[in-house]
Amino acid sequence: MASMSSLIPKTQLGETGFLLSSSPALKPIRNPSLSNSNFMRSISFQSGRRTKLAGNRACVKREGSALSVSCKLIEPDGGQLVELLVPDSKRENKKREAMGLPKIKLSRIDLQWVHVLSEGWASPLRGFMRQSEFLQTLHFHSLRLSDGSVVNMSVPIVLAIDDSQKDDIGHASSVSLVDSNYRPIAILNNIEIYKHNKEERIARTWGTTAPGLPYVDEAITNAGNWLIGGDLEVIEPIKYNDGLDQYRLSPSQLRNEFEKRGADAVFAFQLRNPVHNGHALLMTDTRRRLLKMGYKNPILLLHPLGGFTKADDVPLSWRMKQHEKVLEEGVLNPDTTVVAIFPSPMHYAGPTEVQWHAKSRINAGANFYIVGRDPAGMSHPVEKRDLYDADHGKMVLSMAPGLERLNILPFRVAAYDKKQMKMDFFDPSRPQDFLFISGTKMRTLAKNRENPPDGFMCPGGWKILVEYYDSLAPKETGKFREAVPV
Amino acid sequence: MASMSSLIPKTQLGETGFLLSSSPALKPIRNPSLSNSNFMRSISFQSGRRTKLAGNRACVKREGSALSVSCKLIEPDGGQLVELLVPDSKRENKKREAMGLPKIKLSRIDLQWVHVLSEGWASPLRGFMRQSEFLQTLHFHSLRLSDGSVVNMSVPIVLAIDDSQKDDIGHASSVSLVDSNYRPIAILNNIEIYKHNKEERIARTWGTTAPGLPYVDEAITNAGNWLIGGDLEVIEPIKYNDGLDQYRLSPSQLRNEFEKRGADAVFAFQLRNPVHNGHALLMTDTRRRLLKMGYKNPILLLHPLGGFTKADDVPLSWRMKQHEKVLEEGVLNPDTTVVAIFPSPMHYAGPTEVQWHAKSRINAGANFYIVGRDPAGMSHPVEKRDLYDADHGKMVLSMAPGLERLNILPFRVAAYDKKQMKMDFFDPSRPQDFLFISGTKMRTLAKNRENPPDGFMCPGGWKILVEYYDSLAPKETGKFREAVPV
Repeated sequence: MASMSSLIPKTQLGETGFLLSSSPALKPIRNPSLSNSNFMRSISFQSGRRTKLAGNRACVKREGSALSVSCKLIEPDGGQLVELLVPDSKRENKKREAMGLPKIKLSRIDLQWVHVLSEGWASPLRGFMRQSEFLQTLHFHSLRLSDGSVVNMSVPIVLAIDDSQKDDIGHASSVSLVDSNYRPIAILNNIEIYKHNKEERIARTWGTTAPGLPYVDEAITNAGNWLIGGDLEVIEPIKYNDGLDQYRLSPSQLRNEFEKRGADAVFAFQLRNPVHNGHALLMTDTRRRLLKMGYKNPILLLHPLGGFTKADDVPLSWRMKQHEKVLEEGVLNPDTTVVAIFPSPMHYAGPTEVQWHAKSRINAGANFYIVGRDPAGMSHPVEKRDLYDADHGKMVLSMAPGLERLNILPFRVAAYDKKQMKMDFFDPSRPQDFLFISGTKMRTLAKNRENPPDGFMCPGGWKILVEYYDSLAPKETGKFREAVPV
Repeated sequence: MASMSSLIPKTQLGETGFLLSSSPALKPIRNPSLSNSNFMRSISFQSGRRTKLAGNRACVKREGSALSVSCKLIEPDGGQLVELLVPDSKRENKKREAMGLPKIKLSRIDLQWVHVLSEGWASPLRGFMRQSEFLQTLHFHSLRLSDGSVVNMSVPIVLAIDDSQKDDIGHASSVSLVDSNYRPIAILNNIEIYKHNKEERIARTWGTTAPGLPYVDEAITNAGNWLIGGDLEVIEPIKYNDGLDQYRLSPSQLRNEFEKRGADAVFAFQLRNPVHNGHALLMTDTRRRLLKMGYKNPILLLHPLGGFTKADDVPLSWRMKQHEKVLEEGVLNPDTTVVAIFPSPMHYAGPTEVQWHAKSRINAGANFYIVGRDPAGMSHPVEKRDLYDADHGKMVLSMAPGLERLNILPFRVAAYDKKQMKMDFFDPSRPQDFLFISGTKMRTLAKNRENPPDGFMCPGGWKILVEYYDSLAPKETGKFREAVPV
């Protein structure tokens, strides 16, 4: 995996400010597909004069006939990135302090959230949610700050404890959070303990209470009946020692990287699946369009999710190997791509969760967010249908409070063009030429060691996928072929 | 009931502007019980200098050493009350137009929503919700207007149709809405038809999908799988011909009434139950506190809900009789009270619904809203507990987007003081002296023709309640006494 460090090359445009020409331009417009109402906001592409672009505040200065631009990356939510790591000098003191406090043992997912909070992905949150933040998240998918401004916050970031843990805490105002070996990870200060109404949390987050939601099964059903909120002090950077920690760049590290590269636009692509050429097409096409708008150096943040995923998703380590091949084989350009791991666990909460995926990327410096069909969606766990309407994710994202500064880029559907023998944007005038290859179909092909059509995925990437499924195959009985879904 | 028209007496202070002294004052402060977080907004009482009060924009002019105030009622959401009745002159034309359109037969609850929409309770909504409004309501409990401002909107106001109705509509852009006798009620223009995902609607609105939610059983479970939104033109004012139409004052009529009375503050009390002396206490106490703040003429809007309620609630006609007695017997002062019927159906959706109850009263001119314990709550339909946390309603209300202009008045708990033999605010220093009389207990006493303790409710009001339960008793078998819950 060491070769992947080449994905973060040295600055191309120097570390100074950069220039942006005054033409051609992007103009935020209403999304026509949503235009029936007065209550809409959406951004999409349109040529025309450059107008104020969400996320770039006061960037543009006129100098003679040219526009000179020297601007910083998009501001984090709340104006400042909230990092919760204690300084090196205080580390030992804090460790000792933690030893003397009531202890809460963190689950794997709890630890992922401590990681998320510690680096400021959820800025301006300063720790696990207290009740007022929890209720605002459930009801409004946003938090109102003390200055009256609003930031997006759509998934509860909470820590559950049970009755006996609550009793142990008693009247203490701080607790220490420890890992499975009772090593202190963090201190939670000025704590507030309140009821964990699981049913309401699930219903309002997922829009269903059907049994079988992966995150619910893993992290809620058997969790305690209380939630504990407070301000976090994280003692040491969270590491996983899985050979991938080097790709776990914090928002601050990513911002530095984007600035080093002289990025004048950062477009984020969230994913939890192997990259096929359809994905690649829309990433390169986005860059092309950003260049056409006048940006000189748009940088792609290819940002696979690294936290909890459901059992039938391809594990992070295999996905990272696959992404590496995609860059090695030139499908994406390493010079304009930063690959890093997003440490959040996955909710599979569709339109609710996609807001979290977008909001956290603002904190990492992205001012453009690519959103596809049915983001963060899955099949309904009980009924024979998708859990969410495929269009709701992008609609909700375009209307979400606190995301006004982010430019939402809904993408057109890509499919395999049998005539051109490559992935391309679906052309509704000749539907018969296109083949839709679903995630399920892709997985089944790889399990069966069958090849997808040429041009669907780069060969090295496909090989990784086949290797992964090989590694799962029962050693003794051999493998049975599965029927490939049509 | 005719005597109740005395509840809307002539103006007391004349129809001109009014004066408000500069002391004593109300200052919006953070609610201390919620002060652990940066993310809170709440209003409560505090003496001190008068500061800008939410809902009174630019009211105060300094004239020498005194503050002169001449201001209008709080503005409706969106700046203008949206009334959707067609003018008299166009009525016949619209009726004829409606005859030629595809027809949708309205249920009882649909008709109540047409009523609500027609009078502007849901301003700035102009009709049943289109998909973008529906999604914003489900996810954000608010709508963003074209000027970027936000209004609260927490319950979906939607019209369901089934497959065959959808087929009948075909490519028409308008439909007519008809009553059970196929009389045209309204025209819905520029329609949009979209999927009615019932499970998601229920989960996000109620925070549960448990069977047995009254509104769900009545209006959602058997409704069609499509929703139809559009702009309403309502052909005639909605009337029920039940002897109570005179109390169904529209927001515009209420605003006129408050202005006629020279109200300088309007405080709304939403209810769906008989008024006991605990309710009365907090209404009179609120007035006392508003006077102490410097208001000269605060008017109470006593505003029983008139739409759909669950089977074991006391029906509207009996509640109105009971409210009449409460005013006749001097428990509330008719001179400073307006009793009117709020035409909305009841969702029993707790913290979600209380926002609707508050928002709609802004449109009727109220700038203060009284909120109690567990507003719009009920028992969990399946589990043995209340569906909502009793404090969440007022917490959510105080944080809700679009309600910043409304002053939320959480009230202290009133209970029966056995020593003083009257309802009074609960004194935690002597809990043994207080008796809590729940709605269930009150109903069971009335059913059994037993009397509550003296001072719980005015005798005339109690008599109405007993009469109501008498009217329900099986005629032949006589009545069985029910055990009174402790």
